[in-house]
Amino acid sequence: MSILVVGTTALDSIKTPTKENPRLLGGSASHAAVAASFFSPVNLVGVVGEDFPKKYIALYHKHRIDLAGLQIVPGKTFHWSGEYEVNMNNRRTLLTELGVIETFQPKLPPAYQKIPFVLLSNFAPALQHAVLDQVRNPKFVVADTMDLWMNIAMPDLLRLLKRIDGFVLNDSEAQLLTQEDNIFLALKKIHKLGPKYVIIKKGSHGSILSGPHGNFICPAYPLHTVEDPTGAGDSFVGGLMGYLATAKGPVEKNIRRAMVYGSVTASFCCEGFGLNATTKTTRPKIEARVKELEKLTKF
Amino acid sequence: MSILVVGTTALDSIKTPTKENPRLLGGSASHAAVAASFFSPVNLVGVVGEDFPKKYIALYHKHRIDLAGLQIVPGKTFHWSGEYEVNMNNRRTLLTELGVIETFQPKLPPAYQKIPFVLLSNFAPALQHAVLDQVRNPKFVVADTMDLWMNIAMPDLLRLLKRIDGFVLNDSEAQLLTQEDNIFLALKKIHKLGPKYVIIKKGSHGSILSGPHGNFICPAYPLHTVEDPTGAGDSFVGGLMGYLATAKGPVEKNIRRAMVYGSVTASFCCEGFGLNATTKTTRPKIEARVKELEKLTKF
Repeated sequence: MSILVVGTTALDSIKTPTKENPRLLGGSASHAAVAASFFSPVNLVGVVGEDFPKKYIALYHKHRIDLAGLQIVPGKTFHWSGEYEVNMNNRRTLLTELGVIETFQPKLPPAYQKIPFVLLSNFAPALQHAVLDQVRNPKFVVADTMDLWMNIAMPDLLRLLKRIDGFVLNDSEAQLLTQEDNIFLALKKIHKLGPKYVIIKKGSHGSILSGPHGNFICPAYPLHTVEDPTGAGDSFVGGLMGYLATAKGPVEKNIRRAMVYGSVTASFCCEGFGLNATTKTTRPKIEARVKELEKLTKF
Repeated sequence: MSILVVGTTALDSIKTPTKENPRLLGGSASHAAVAASFFSPVNLVGVVGEDFPKKYIALYHKHRIDLAGLQIVPGKTFHWSGEYEVNMNNRRTLLTELGVIETFQPKLPPAYQKIPFVLLSNFAPALQHAVLDQVRNPKFVVADTMDLWMNIAMPDLLRLLKRIDGFVLNDSEAQLLTQEDNIFLALKKIHKLGPKYVIIKKGSHGSILSGPHGNFICPAYPLHTVEDPTGAGDSFVGGLMGYLATAKGPVEKNIRRAMVYGSVTASFCCEGFGLNATTKTTRPKIEARVKELEKLTKF
């Protein structure tokens, strides 16, 4: 089955202590869509300006991402610029130019409205709602988010949590949302807000799933070098949803392995700037790392 | 087989945001010895003053810990006082009274000198050396440490690393020792200093083993309440060594499960002040949590 991915499609200028890369392809939906493309057909919903480089359209095409839902409109593409500190754990936003994203109204092509797996990548909750308003009987809807929306659009986000099956956020965001330091108590509080599945991402410490059949402790793939972690969380949820869309059987049966596939896909993302390393990976390389993770966690 | 545990035997006064507990039984060796006692016979080497409460001697006895190596000398028992911040992650030392530990010279009873499993719990590296000088052909020697010794006794610590089989430290200590942020690169650097097995503890994020047959990602048991994490690291290594001492076959075959047993034993430690929760647990309760961790990590 195929998946629908909606979120930001952006140009990212990223500085790390050793390198600087201007105007790379970025955005939550770009990372999630490319990650998902290793597993299932992907349909992208987003907006870019007329300045959007043709080579990035070609990159989407290389991953067989359907672009019928990508609007190309007059104006400038959303541009984000950020800088990482020495240990790559802290990120500082230098610049945010919303551009065409400011007036974006997602409009799903008719063929997209019946797509069974819907991934609402990190984006304004109001726009995530606008997409949900247009899909019909989806099989599984997952939303990602970020602290920004908790600060400026909490009512929209809380309303969204009642409309989705799975919710993905990182540990500091879970703490912000629930005012709870303990991750397992935070998971319980988030379930009460709506979602049947809640996944808390912990970066290099892996992630935790809470679902109807209990918790799953998902490992992160051990990386010796992290060149640029931007988009790792988006890649994680993209890989997860891509895997789920093509795995046989119910979500409950597949979601643990889906997380491991997401985790591995995210590991490739960290090994290059922007999407550089993700686009160079292959399904066999992903499978090899999943096998490695099996060995690394067996006892 | 039995294990030898050397380290501090102390009185701990611990404050958390909600509670205060004066003069509890504490110290690296106390926590490690009690943790190990669920798996194997334990022989304790340490020193306490004449003020050491008889009820704590009784507590050691309850766990069938051999005290032939525990010196009771004139003076005051080592007393540590500390305070935890709201999220229990940051600890502040309020007071350290060395007492009888200041002039301690470990002296192993003859029966202790041939004990095959030697655990050098966190202590001054010079005293860890003094114990190693007295043991004969141990099968497996593990040392734990802390940042303090890196700051005031680095040459002794570096010399120790060439005399032990396994080294246990936490992530911030590994960073301090190697000047390396990436945990997997830090592991490689520590191997070059001597130990065949290196374990980096990451608190609630679990621990990582690096050994001759690669890495193992060990989960932490999910805790809903952490009353007092003091001694959790000591309990981890105590449980690990206790399990190893009685498991059949070579260390390499058993060390992953040993870490899981250590991790579970440490989880009980966190659920009460000082040793309150650890002493109340049982082998069946430990086995139940190990089984749970198997389910929590399976994919």
